[in-house]
Amino acid sequence: MTLTYALELIGTFVFAISGALAAEEHELDAFGITFIAFITALGGGTTRDVLLGIHPLVWIADTNYLLTIFVAVAVAIAFKQYILPLRKTFFLFDTIGIGFFTILGLKKALLVAQVSPLIGVIMGMVSATFGGVLRDVFCNQVPLIFRKEIYATACLVGAGIYLFLEKISPYTRLNTLLTIFIIIIIRFVAVKYKLSLTWKR
Amino acid sequence: MTLTYALELIGTFVFAISGALAAEEHELDAFGITFIAFITALGGGTTRDVLLGIHPLVWIADTNYLLTIFVAVAVAIAFKQYILPLRKTFFLFDTIGIGFFTILGLKKALLVAQVSPLIGVIMGMVSATFGGVLRDVFCNQVPLIFRKEIYATACLVGAGIYLFLEKISPYTRLNTLLTIFIIIIIRFVAVKYKLSLTWKR
Amino acid sequence: MTLTYALELIGTFVFAISGALAAEEHELDAFGITFIAFITALGGGTTRDVLLGIHPLVWIADTNYLLTIFVAVAVAIAFKQYILPLRKTFFLFDTIGIGFFTILGLKKALLVAQVSPLIGVIMGMVSATFGGVLRDVFCNQVPLIFRKEIYATACLVGAGIYLFLEKISPYTRLNTLLTIFIIIIIRFVAVKYKLSLTWKR
Repeated sequence: MTLTYALELIGTFVFAISGALAAEEHELDAFGITFIAFITALGGGTTRDVLLGIHPLVWIADTNYLLTIFVAVAVAIAFKQYILPLRKTFFLFDTIGIGFFTILGLKKALLVAQVSPLIGVIMGMVSATFGGVLRDVFCNQVPLIFRKEIYATACLVGAGIYLFLEKISPYTRLNTLLTIFIIIIIRFVAVKYKLSLTWKR
Repeated sequence: MTLTYALELIGTFVFAISGALAAEEHELDAFGITFIAFITALGGGTTRDVLLGIHPLVWIADTNYLLTIFVAVAVAIAFKQYILPLRKTFFLFDTIGIGFFTILGLKKALLVAQVSPLIGVIMGMVSATFGGVLRDVFCNQVPLIFRKEIYATACLVGAGIYLFLEKISPYTRLNTLLTIFIIIIIRFVAVKYKLSLTWKR
Repeated sequence: MTLTYALELIGTFVFAISGALAAEEHELDAFGITFIAFITALGGGTTRDVLLGIHPLVWIADTNYLLTIFVAVAVAIAFKQYILPLRKTFFLFDTIGIGFFTILGLKKALLVAQVSPLIGVIMGMVSATFGGVLRDVFCNQVPLIFRKEIYATACLVGAGIYLFLEKISPYTRLNTLLTIFIIIIIRFVAVKYKLSLTWKR
């Protein structure tokens, strides 16, 4: 098992737990919670691959992703009271997750579908954020990232920086870490100083 | 015309009528009603085939499906007052329909896209239930099957049982009937005793 | 640059502006506004191509579409107070746009995916209207065209007339203009006399 694969499953696990907790708040049943956990964790990559026409989808070819989600849902339901107080830790994991998924999505779009850099950056952002968008649509809410928080924008900036770093430096692993670090900084600063992309109207 | 094909069109007809009746309650116009009837009847199979990358979609290759939906919408609008009291009959037809579509979807995923059994079971469930999920999303509601009724779960159990039966018995038609019968029993028992996948929180 | 290509970018621009203005009313942030502008302008063609299995998607192969949307969003935000009073002009442009996109979508479905005329007409309507449907779903509303206005129906009628004209006349450009003109007339008459596809219940 490569490091990237392990990180992908861990990211899937973290996103599935946050999806399951969100679903619980909407008083869904066990099936609804599992569906929302699934779409939160795998909706972004699925949207990216359907738009790019890449088949088979990752979770269809490799059932470890689904098994990871089933475990995450069981953990989220069983240990809810222990997980909920860990919101800050989760915020960190979630941000690491979107950074990581942004870069993976960017790379897949560039290498497998051979898209232009602009589309690659957008597909990186779609991979990282569209799971949350679909989660909100299925829970009947205007998607959170359309209203507040610098979230998708952090992914776009991170993806752009990663492309730049790859041009000037051959150390892919270092570039990845640096990019994820920059995405974390952007989100932390934005949340701390309540920055947003809105303006007075 | 084979028996399976006839049953598929009948299932499409029943699902389209239930979709049209639901759309009427939301005070949609004739176009909205037709769209919701379409998505209720064909949204599940369409989602399955888009996820699996199977083209052309069934209703694109064979316009009989669309014609069936147009007839169903006309019937639903014209004979609404005669259909609405038949809710119990409809419940039976709807349950037969999801059982039948579960098995068809499972088979298509296994044979055409050659997925693993777990993905096959999930694709069977998607075929049978995702039309209703999309109906609710387009009608701006949290999908019903995320909140109550053992519906998707009955499909998952049915699909699993069908796979098992196919392993131990060569009588596909009997296995199909048995599976649909089991799905009906699960739903009837769940509705009668108000079982659900929720728990006290 | 051909005339068709120029018209496509202009249509994308007009749809993106109307999407951005709609998103502004829902108090979305800059990312949300850009996303809604994108989905309003390109959601119809994207849905058509995903359903037909045509890849790469237009805006993935040619980034001019995305650049057009970015410019449209900037214009919509910067010149909002000058654009809003032009609603009537916009209504005209929007109607020309749906006429034009209906015919483009119809042709693409017939030529590239070689579908039957009925599916071609439906794909023309999907191209022209589904962007608006997705805009409403992501803004958490029952799609406008499901409730009022003869909008999708005008596209269906227009697409049917275009197919007929192409059978009896070799002047494609004239047929296109005539069809767009008919779609405009249908919409104007429907809006003026408050015609709709609803009935008393």
